[in-house]
Amino acid sequence: MSLTGQPPAAVLVFQTLLQHGPLSRAEIGRRTGLSPGAVTKSATPLIADGWITEVGRPTAERANGRPATLVAVRAARARFVGVKITGDELIGVLADLTARPLASRRAALDSRDVGTVVLAIARLVQQLRDTADVGEADAIHGLGVTISGDVDGQTGHVQYSPFLNWRRVPLAQLVESATAIPTVIENDVRALTVAEQWFGAGAGLSSFALVTVGAGIGAGLSVGGRVISGAHGVAGEVGHLPVGGTERTCTCGNTGCVEAVASTHAITEQARQATGDAELTMEEAVRLAHAGDPAVRGVFTHAGHTLGLALASVANLIGPERIIISGEGVASYDLFADQIRQTFADHAFGAAADCDLVVRSLPFEEWARGGAAVAAQRVFAPAK
Amino acid sequence: MSLTGQPPAAVLVFQTLLQHGPLSRAEIGRRTGLSPGAVTKSATPLIADGWITEVGRPTAERANGRPATLVAVRAARARFVGVKITGDELIGVLADLTARPLASRRAALDSRDVGTVVLAIARLVQQLRDTADVGEADAIHGLGVTISGDVDGQTGHVQYSPFLNWRRVPLAQLVESATAIPTVIENDVRALTVAEQWFGAGAGLSSFALVTVGAGIGAGLSVGGRVISGAHGVAGEVGHLPVGGTERTCTCGNTGCVEAVASTHAITEQARQATGDAELTMEEAVRLAHAGDPAVRGVFTHAGHTLGLALASVANLIGPERIIISGEGVASYDLFADQIRQTFADHAFGAAADCDLVVRSLPFEEWARGGAAVAAQRVFAPAK
Ligand SMILES: [Zn+2]
Ligand SMILES: [Zn+2]
Repeated sequence: MSLTGQPPAAVLVFQTLLQHGPLSRAEIGRRTGLSPGAVTKSATPLIADGWITEVGRPTAERANGRPATLVAVRAARARFVGVKITGDELIGVLADLTARPLASRRAALDSRDVGTVVLAIARLVQQLRDTADVGEADAIHGLGVTISGDVDGQTGHVQYSPFLNWRRVPLAQLVESATAIPTVIENDVRALTVAEQWFGAGAGLSSFALVTVGAGIGAGLSVGGRVISGAHGVAGEVGHLPVGGTERTCTCGNTGCVEAVASTHAITEQARQATGDAELTMEEAVRLAHAGDPAVRGVFTHAGHTLGLALASVANLIGPERIIISGEGVASYDLFADQIRQTFADHAFGAAADCDLVVRSLPFEEWARGGAAVAAQRVFAPAK
Repeated sequence: MSLTGQPPAAVLVFQTLLQHGPLSRAEIGRRTGLSPGAVTKSATPLIADGWITEVGRPTAERANGRPATLVAVRAARARFVGVKITGDELIGVLADLTARPLASRRAALDSRDVGTVVLAIARLVQQLRDTADVGEADAIHGLGVTISGDVDGQTGHVQYSPFLNWRRVPLAQLVESATAIPTVIENDVRALTVAEQWFGAGAGLSSFALVTVGAGIGAGLSVGGRVISGAHGVAGEVGHLPVGGTERTCTCGNTGCVEAVASTHAITEQARQATGDAELTMEEAVRLAHAGDPAVRGVFTHAGHTLGLALASVANLIGPERIIISGEGVASYDLFADQIRQTFADHAFGAAADCDLVVRSLPFEEWARGGAAVAAQRVFAPAK
């Protein structure tokens, strides 16, 4: 029930169709560098096993004097569920092989206790499964659960999740026992990056970064078709780049972190100091800034400057084709957008400044879809 | 004369032997995931064409009741020349398919004029070729020229090299015309990283960074078996990470760059300010620091702190297994080593601090070998 046993050429054919299909066999050959014989040899068992299929009308292109037939991935071949865990709710989607959502559901969490959350996930998965049509794809082929924090996808452990206050939780195993579905877990930002890489704003790019700004500040980095996970499980920690000056202390204990200046909490705190109003909320800070309050505007400008330095650091090190900016903080993006772009342009080195900055509002259902993409990726992009 | 035409499985077999060989066919199968039949089918034409060969005595391992034979890369199958260009000399090496140096030579440059440098490269290559044994490998299969600055390996252009003051020089084409050898060019730090990845302190690592400290500060980043080159040609610009405070202005025009605080030139300038001696040299600054002069020691400590922040930024974003520190600055490494390690440990996020920091003194011949490795890589790791 996976491509794992297939030879490398067949996996390559499948991935090429996933990102660029439908294609003729000749075009598959051009894109993969495989010979016509090798393409046919790879495609035949994939067709027989229902992973890919001939589609639609033949193109104008002709092979051996006959019209060439297009081949495409059969999205209905497998179904996956993705679940994102936040501090107070679960967001779940049922998706096909291309991570296209077929149904979605939310469930409130009244406790952050591990056992309670695992049972709530199992219930949510069952509800999503019940919404699925009966038939070949009735079975769920994989489940991907995502959560913010330090997640080891290899061992299936949540090493540390600050929002839930979990440490060393064998979440993959617990959820797999409760659901009887093969389960993978992943850091939520990294999972969202996987979805963007295969099926979103990152598809077809040689490299991109997805930076999320909100309660926390994180990033997923996609390079050469893989989301970087770090040799020790840490990567994309944009929130803890030491570019933020020495005034404020981060939740990690350091000074200088981006998160200590530009997270929702940090902005609220600085706006309280700036106004002398110890009860000020983020919503009120946004309102004051929109109304032109210079002190509160200054807080957003400073946060924007620090985010610009962080994005320039990503560009100078990785040189991504595009940086996607998302997260809850994007709702007040207009308050720091100019400063982010200005500082980025100033500090990106040479041609690194050509990197495209785009803002994308991604609701939690998209994040949950990241879980489905990670589960699907285990099928079509087995780890080497 | 390359593996480019070979199917992906054969390229995979060859690369596996290059990094882990000699291996039995069964072990190749285990490491690549290829079936025994696919291994044999891939290996046979590689043996016939002289790329790999059966070596030595059979191991204790038995295949079908017979002792298993080991297979290895035939390093003598192809020869390459690598040349590093500095501001005042060329350093060249003749190397085999595994970038093992067979001969090396230097040549002084009395002009930085492009035409003069190209002719000097051609002369150096001819001298290295003359030192080679006559025989199958008498021909040079490829030439790799490396230079600091913004180098576009795809088009073969040096976009900008500050030390030579070159802009938009079609160096690959000029050298290829002058030598009649297929020529690739690459940024020198990135080329050194390629050599370390396949044949040096990075071999077998999932990811590593090579940071060079000296007149400039740069880095090569190897992730998933590829050195990151950046979508716009810029990557690994550790020297222009904005973690250095706002006091000093960088050659790039910005404040905050690591290079503005920790390059040889920046250290010398700061030591002059600290001592009031406007004629102080780097050597004298090193001597004063070793003698315990607190002001000059402070300059090195501050440089070490800034380098530590830069390395922590690399670790937090990429999470490499190892960071290799090299470059001319390593000669005075004892003066800032403690501070680099301390700041790195403080600012690396969570398990990113587990990244191994190693110092390696790499003479310019090793850098030239990087050029040979880049040329060889075109043969055994054709770009996708
Ligand atoms: Zn922090
Ligand atoms: Zn700079």
